[in-house]
Amino acid sequence: MKFVKDFTWKPGMNVNTLVGNMGNIGFQSIELNNAVESIVKMKKDGAKIYLTFTSNMVTSGLRGFFAQLIKLNMVDAIVTTVGGLEEDIMKAHGEEFIIGNFATDDIELNEKGINRVGNLFIKNESYSRFEDLINPIIKDIYKKKNRWAPSELFNEIGKTLNDENSILYQATKNKVPIFCPAITDGAFGFHLFMFQQNNPDFVIDVVKDFQNILLSTSHDEKKGIISLGGSISKHHAILACLLNGGLDYAVYLTTARHTSGSMSGATTDEAKSWGKIKDASDAATVIGDVSITFPLVMISALEKLTEQGIIKNDE
Amino acid sequence: MKFVKDFTWKPGMNVNTLVGNMGNIGFQSIELNNAVESIVKMKKDGAKIYLTFTSNMVTSGLRGFFAQLIKLNMVDAIVTTVGGLEEDIMKAHGEEFIIGNFATDDIELNEKGINRVGNLFIKNESYSRFEDLINPIIKDIYKKKNRWAPSELFNEIGKTLNDENSILYQATKNKVPIFCPAITDGAFGFHLFMFQQNNPDFVIDVVKDFQNILLSTSHDEKKGIISLGGSISKHHAILACLLNGGLDYAVYLTTARHTSGSMSGATTDEAKSWGKIKDASDAATVIGDVSITFPLVMISALEKLTEQGIIKNDE
Amino acid sequence: MKFVKDFTWKPGMNVNTLVGNMGNIGFQSIELNNAVESIVKMKKDGAKIYLTFTSNMVTSGLRGFFAQLIKLNMVDAIVTTVGGLEEDIMKAHGEEFIIGNFATDDIELNEKGINRVGNLFIKNESYSRFEDLINPIIKDIYKKKNRWAPSELFNEIGKTLNDENSILYQATKNKVPIFCPAITDGAFGFHLFMFQQNNPDFVIDVVKDFQNILLSTSHDEKKGIISLGGSISKHHAILACLLNGGLDYAVYLTTARHTSGSMSGATTDEAKSWGKIKDASDAATVIGDVSITFPLVMISALEKLTEQGIIKNDE
Amino acid sequence: MKFVKDFTWKPGMNVNTLVGNMGNIGFQSIELNNAVESIVKMKKDGAKIYLTFTSNMVTSGLRGFFAQLIKLNMVDAIVTTVGGLEEDIMKAHGEEFIIGNFATDDIELNEKGINRVGNLFIKNESYSRFEDLINPIIKDIYKKKNRWAPSELFNEIGKTLNDENSILYQATKNKVPIFCPAITDGAFGFHLFMFQQNNPDFVIDVVKDFQNILLSTSHDEKKGIISLGGSISKHHAILACLLNGGLDYAVYLTTARHTSGSMSGATTDEAKSWGKIKDASDAATVIGDVSITFPLVMISALEKLTEQGIIKNDE
Repeated sequence: MKFVKDFTWKPGMNVNTLVGNMGNIGFQSIELNNAVESIVKMKKDGAKIYLTFTSNMVTSGLRGFFAQLIKLNMVDAIVTTVGGLEEDIMKAHGEEFIIGNFATDDIELNEKGINRVGNLFIKNESYSRFEDLINPIIKDIYKKKNRWAPSELFNEIGKTLNDENSILYQATKNKVPIFCPAITDGAFGFHLFMFQQNNPDFVIDVVKDFQNILLSTSHDEKKGIISLGGSISKHHAILACLLNGGLDYAVYLTTARHTSGSMSGATTDEAKSWGKIKDASDAATVIGDVSITFPLVMISALEKLTEQGIIKNDE
Repeated sequence: MKFVKDFTWKPGMNVNTLVGNMGNIGFQSIELNNAVESIVKMKKDGAKIYLTFTSNMVTSGLRGFFAQLIKLNMVDAIVTTVGGLEEDIMKAHGEEFIIGNFATDDIELNEKGINRVGNLFIKNESYSRFEDLINPIIKDIYKKKNRWAPSELFNEIGKTLNDENSILYQATKNKVPIFCPAITDGAFGFHLFMFQQNNPDFVIDVVKDFQNILLSTSHDEKKGIISLGGSISKHHAILACLLNGGLDYAVYLTTARHTSGSMSGATTDEAKSWGKIKDASDAATVIGDVSITFPLVMISALEKLTEQGIIKNDE
Repeated sequence: MKFVKDFTWKPGMNVNTLVGNMGNIGFQSIELNNAVESIVKMKKDGAKIYLTFTSNMVTSGLRGFFAQLIKLNMVDAIVTTVGGLEEDIMKAHGEEFIIGNFATDDIELNEKGINRVGNLFIKNESYSRFEDLINPIIKDIYKKKNRWAPSELFNEIGKTLNDENSILYQATKNKVPIFCPAITDGAFGFHLFMFQQNNPDFVIDVVKDFQNILLSTSHDEKKGIISLGGSISKHHAILACLLNGGLDYAVYLTTARHTSGSMSGATTDEAKSWGKIKDASDAATVIGDVSITFPLVMISALEKLTEQGIIKNDE
Repeated sequence: MKFVKDFTWKPGMNVNTLVGNMGNIGFQSIELNNAVESIVKMKKDGAKIYLTFTSNMVTSGLRGFFAQLIKLNMVDAIVTTVGGLEEDIMKAHGEEFIIGNFATDDIELNEKGINRVGNLFIKNESYSRFEDLINPIIKDIYKKKNRWAPSELFNEIGKTLNDENSILYQATKNKVPIFCPAITDGAFGFHLFMFQQNNPDFVIDVVKDFQNILLSTSHDEKKGIISLGGSISKHHAILACLLNGGLDYAVYLTTARHTSGSMSGATTDEAKSWGKIKDASDAATVIGDVSITFPLVMISALEKLTEQGIIKNDE
């Protein structure tokens, strides 16, 4: 039996020690430490790991961390929404997002040509520049063939980038597929549509990517998911694994709640009823803002995996 | 200036009276009444109305209400995720979902072949029967042509159904397009993939549907949105309207919060910074479970619009 | 087995019919209907009913409804915080609270002498007038005796009011005790302190009210709770009933979540571990804003109890 | 202007560095870093600091951290609810709380004599032993005088304890008053009531403690609050400071939301309308579970204050 331990600070305390202590505190801190243990376990067990996240997390500075996880060979496949991938490209070309605040006069912001995403601000001109960037890329890709699965297309785009902190750059370099089942739900969709107007045989083949995600793992391989936030990213990765015999490990970090019956709010408990998670001990749900919980969970897992020689950090 | 009024019950009180009283209570009840007024205003103003919802709301009994809203000519376009459309087809063929509860032994449920979605239960065999249903439909559709936008495909499926409470049936009958930007994110995706294996020229053209949703409204038309929950459904409808000059009216009903910077949690305040909502008075955000808030808001709006002769209920 | 039923609107639908339909929809609407059934059951079973609420609910227009429930003999004891009781007195003397909005310039409001409570506004002068009201009352009470339990004191204050919509007025008239374990946590505390400065033997005897709440029920009586929001109001009523053998029925309406281990967020599931709730079927937790959920639940319960002749509405 | 910076992990990263990086990530991580800055600022400015927390945080292992903060001279007054103080005494006498989980069979737990508080378990016998502990203390205290303000009483109890990790022990030792406006809302209330039965002149003078909290600061002193969770603890500290000219600094860590108009969910924005917080830059609200956010915020503040020689950690 494990007991609550009174936490006390020691100067210079590192993140891994803190997260270990959190496992003895109570409430969500315990779940956070459980999440670390599930991730360490899935990695040590050689499971294929699916990382899913929503676009706003790329808007935030977690983008560089996602790229680092790919580089460190921590994840085997990514499932996400298109907005974040657009911003990954924008940032790889030098765009900067401003730290603002939640309570702002939104009409005034709009007049200044600024868009608000929570407490971050993005200038309209950043989106305009994206248009200039993406159109030549689509043209080049079309020259190679006229029918592209989204993951193939993002693999091509990754080749055009040169930024260590870019998700797409690292994904292409490290052969980690990026699945994006709703590729048209963003500025990208608009540019693809404009291009198709002049090139009617240009087709994005989303059905083909269903094959690709299914083949990204096999029935016999162990499978794990680290799901940040909800949305179709979470749902799609779970679905693909379910069709391949179900997930062996699952970690959900989210602010959504189970009480409305949405997939975004579904906990790893509910997942058991879908045959998705086979055993309680290998799953953890942490309720809280991912910009706080994910660095804590992942840093602690990386420290442990580095110590054990499973993750190699060459820098 | 408007003042808080002490609420008291009168026997036999109807929904419309209660919602009107709620406008004088405080906190979310006021926002709920604001949402009614925004919906009445957008309809009276002749705006094109986009209704968006997530799959779990179709799992719930709101499905029949969505179908009724299409039939009553209350909405002009639907944006949703594919899971709900699968269940709409299943229900149109007689499948029944069980009312269960949130706290159940999920491993035991799994052994009984039951999937849990919040406090609702769905049998595995319901999904198996869906497979038998959908495959012949895909075959027939392919005979007509090999390249389909999702909205065209769902229009065809609607023709095969005969159920007044079906969203797809009413959508086809009343020429309301159903947009589904992530059509492969469900059992549907699997069946499309299996079919494509044998018919490699079969293509789902999601880029084409970007054109369709853009052309579903014009720059000059007034536009309104009623968005239930978050997900790409909400994002996609807003995006399409934004590219057409922006929304004039917006009502968001959701449990998600703005504090994590997600689109699901974005309020109609934040929407102003995207140029999406032009004026504060025409927008409302209600925080709460849609299975409670939506019937209240929508019934009250329908009663008011019926009184004014704008909605005609022939039954 | 109960199945999900597609909801459809019928013109003129009354609240009770809607809530009944909600029991077949899904997610929180089902829980809401469960709450109605638990309340009807506890009343029919002759249980002593404890109603608990937080101050902000009295700021809202629910105040009149609480008063009506006392008048209708629906509840046997009230547990609440002092801020709401202050506002009940203020409103009984004609103060009006303004309907504002959540997003306001709070510094500007402050300069205008306006306090914001969510989307409601209260003028500073309302509090000043409260001072003039309450001081003579304290003086009169002190003349009778120098040591008062909070529930005795509020009973005295109720005698000075004449407002059908007042909680204190109805409580005194109908002999329903009002327990307020943190009586000094408000403007009231300040005025009691000022009075004690000049009258050092004046004492508020909170320990005595522990006896009073314990004796407000007996070990053998059936007991039920309707708890709105969290706070010590919820905790105190549960504690008192627990010391008397535990609650037989419990309905919690709240926005707080169980995931942080707080009493405010504790569900009726957790209550079972405290020996508080004896059986699952007699308890319900509804997640959502009380200004929406409570009128729905309570109106529906009142309609059913009136039909069965248990509640008599003479007006 | 400050820009989002891509976060990357470096092995051995300490908590203070991580929290600094979080200030450049986005969403709640930015607010968390703002909270650190507000706390550092209030301490450097010599403000009197009020720390408020709810009982469940003492159930958790944060108890030792609260005791350490008192010892480090970081806080000048505590406001809390009685349940946590009972558990502080229990733990000082060796009671241990078990780390369990949220999803347990609560009826089974009850049969085993175990109470669940979130994912922590407390044995019934722990409460029984508390009874044996507290009664002799009350007797001794009564011998000294018959009328006690709660803060005086807790000061006496602190003298009986000998545990570095005890809040009451450190509070008495370091002359930090503990205010508890609802002292009867717990097992404590029951034992006080039993004692009063035999000693009718025994009185707990809550009105006197209103004087004590008012005199714990002066109109001219700078004042700051660090409020964890909501409840009357938060409200009472704010009220006392407001009557003394208002707060100069405020940090709220909570899971409650502003949308229901409760004090628990009120943000530091709303506080401005109460004249409570004078300037936006000195206030921060972080949404999330306190068992995660508080260690991060406070450790980072302590590291910074230690570096600057303001906090001295002799161990």
